[in-house]
Amino acid sequence: MTSAKGLEGVVVASTQISHVFGEEGRLVYRGYEIAQLAGKASYEEVCYLLWNGKLPTRRELDEMNSAMRAQRALPDNGALLRLLPANTDPMDALRTGASAVGAMLPISGKPSYEQAMALTARFPTIVAAFHRIRNGQEPVAPRTDLGHAANYLYMLTGEVPPDHHVKSLDTYLTLLADHGMNASTFTARVIASTESDLASCVVGGVGALKGPLHGGAPALVMDMLDEIGTIENIHPWIDNALNTHVKLMGFGHRVYKTTDPRAEILRDMARHSSTPEFFALAHGTEEYAIQELNRRKPDQRLYTNVEFYSAGVLHSVGLPRDLYPATFGVSRVAGWTAHVLEQMVGNRLIRPQSEYIGPQGLIFTPIEQREVVHVG
Amino acid sequence: MTSAKGLEGVVVASTQISHVFGEEGRLVYRGYEIAQLAGKASYEEVCYLLWNGKLPTRRELDEMNSAMRAQRALPDNGALLRLLPANTDPMDALRTGASAVGAMLPISGKPSYEQAMALTARFPTIVAAFHRIRNGQEPVAPRTDLGHAANYLYMLTGEVPPDHHVKSLDTYLTLLADHGMNASTFTARVIASTESDLASCVVGGVGALKGPLHGGAPALVMDMLDEIGTIENIHPWIDNALNTHVKLMGFGHRVYKTTDPRAEILRDMARHSSTPEFFALAHGTEEYAIQELNRRKPDQRLYTNVEFYSAGVLHSVGLPRDLYPATFGVSRVAGWTAHVLEQMVGNRLIRPQSEYIGPQGLIFTPIEQREVVHVG
Repeated sequence: MTSAKGLEGVVVASTQISHVFGEEGRLVYRGYEIAQLAGKASYEEVCYLLWNGKLPTRRELDEMNSAMRAQRALPDNGALLRLLPANTDPMDALRTGASAVGAMLPISGKPSYEQAMALTARFPTIVAAFHRIRNGQEPVAPRTDLGHAANYLYMLTGEVPPDHHVKSLDTYLTLLADHGMNASTFTARVIASTESDLASCVVGGVGALKGPLHGGAPALVMDMLDEIGTIENIHPWIDNALNTHVKLMGFGHRVYKTTDPRAEILRDMARHSSTPEFFALAHGTEEYAIQELNRRKPDQRLYTNVEFYSAGVLHSVGLPRDLYPATFGVSRVAGWTAHVLEQMVGNRLIRPQSEYIGPQGLIFTPIEQREVVHVG
Repeated sequence: MTSAKGLEGVVVASTQISHVFGEEGRLVYRGYEIAQLAGKASYEEVCYLLWNGKLPTRRELDEMNSAMRAQRALPDNGALLRLLPANTDPMDALRTGASAVGAMLPISGKPSYEQAMALTARFPTIVAAFHRIRNGQEPVAPRTDLGHAANYLYMLTGEVPPDHHVKSLDTYLTLLADHGMNASTFTARVIASTESDLASCVVGGVGALKGPLHGGAPALVMDMLDEIGTIENIHPWIDNALNTHVKLMGFGHRVYKTTDPRAEILRDMARHSSTPEFFALAHGTEEYAIQELNRRKPDQRLYTNVEFYSAGVLHSVGLPRDLYPATFGVSRVAGWTAHVLEQMVGNRLIRPQSEYIGPQGLIFTPIEQREVVHVG
């Protein structure tokens, strides 16, 4: 028996899809360093890579794009999303919408590549349609002549987005598409291991990603930067936060023991895509926070994580803050589906053990004979 | 580093809620052997026990029942379920309906006892409303003067069920309410470990339970018994199945190495609640299957599991076969929510590792320069 709360360091699967080399600050997708792909391969190329294990030729990419673009519309044209209250958390809307897509489309049965495309194609549509509806606007129908990132922004605003927004979002989607055995991917693989369907797996993934310890952090980074507000306030704000044990958002990671390579790429993007004022505030906060964190806790090796500059990049393309976690999901669904397809090969039910620390041997008494606790 | 595909034997949590003593064929809820509770404590008492760690007094039970019964109605009166195609898998309907309840009710934020009651109270309503709608019938509004099991049957049929049906279903719900660190409970705890909300956790649980390796088996037991059909056909059918390596449904379990104690209780129930013909067929199949399995694979110690007689009991109370997994969910949501509440105490993100067995160091080439594969 091995006991491992949090499963830290426990290897649950062999994978060919991606890996986080935490000590070296490297992230590899199917053999490619993330910096090789970011800004060079489109999100769709990365989807193909994660699903198929190789980058597509032009013809293969065109075929996949045709298949996915034909699958963008929601089976009920968003009728279900209209039933949700306007103040619904967008992650709840994505979870419910993805579950409904699974219920409405014939995507039960064994997870397949076709199902992976069908679900990944619809994730942006669910988020954008819900966002329009909650604002009292009609959903914008997807366009088949736009790429994945461009079409997402188009469905949110009704306008074809500028190229630099498309490029920023496409790179963000590429960077976040997979990340080893993270908690939402692990959730998807546990569900897959019962031989459930693909929609169940990705719906579980959305639920796990919603948690502040996983996908919920970038919006909190923006809240923090708002609170800091000015360059002059960086030092006093961070000193005060660290003195009063307030958690700084966007630093530290279970696996990385040096800078997250995605954070470095996103920082470069934010430098060019954000306003100079925003970047100065974010970068100044990063530098002073790292300096102080490592001075106060030198053994913890805390560095900037992906959430920190995700916030800046998503902000720069005009995404409302409360859509950051759902946009993370729009990206990560590619990884979830790739991992589920891999889990199916030689699958074994993921069924750990627990240690029982409760009582034993209690004697049942019928309710009439149980001690009445007198209150007051 | 520990490597454990399937996490067999890896302890992921300490729990006071329940435990499976696999070698001894024992299941304990909060200190009580399952046979102490089955048929004696109502499902609601068991919910209270799992959530609070002790059996309720009459007054405590009355208070909990009042709270739960007031929460039975769906926030949209089933409008969302009407959008699902009539041939939707009931587990997809339950997954989507539970997700929508989470979206529509103010049950975001940290998981709480109140949320556990709110979700558990609505599980039967979702299943029953969907079942009515798919059959072209109006959903039946819940009644606050009926217990959990009775009200579920009432909402399915529109008629107050006979006492012996209520007793059978109530005992079934009690038996299935929790079961150590099974795959759906583990899913719920992994999601909880990201500090996500309770609806996300139970929606993930439904997705995992849907898998044939977990909650999907009892319906397959009925299919098998249908195929066998007659007492005379038991020996030739099982001989042929074993000779041709067809998997027998309802035998074997990852943890139990002897008879599942729930199977024994359910067998006794099926003996009294099923028709004599059905019981003779089921019991004859069980006895010959066990004899032959243990003769052919003596090292595997295969015994009857909970699915085998679950099928018979659910059949005897008139449940359609394709509602068996969802009815399992109606029971198990009590365990999922109890485990999530426990996970929140001293929570640590459940984030295992994977071993990377893919390539490294591949050089990216832009799509225009990639080798074109000539087909044909």
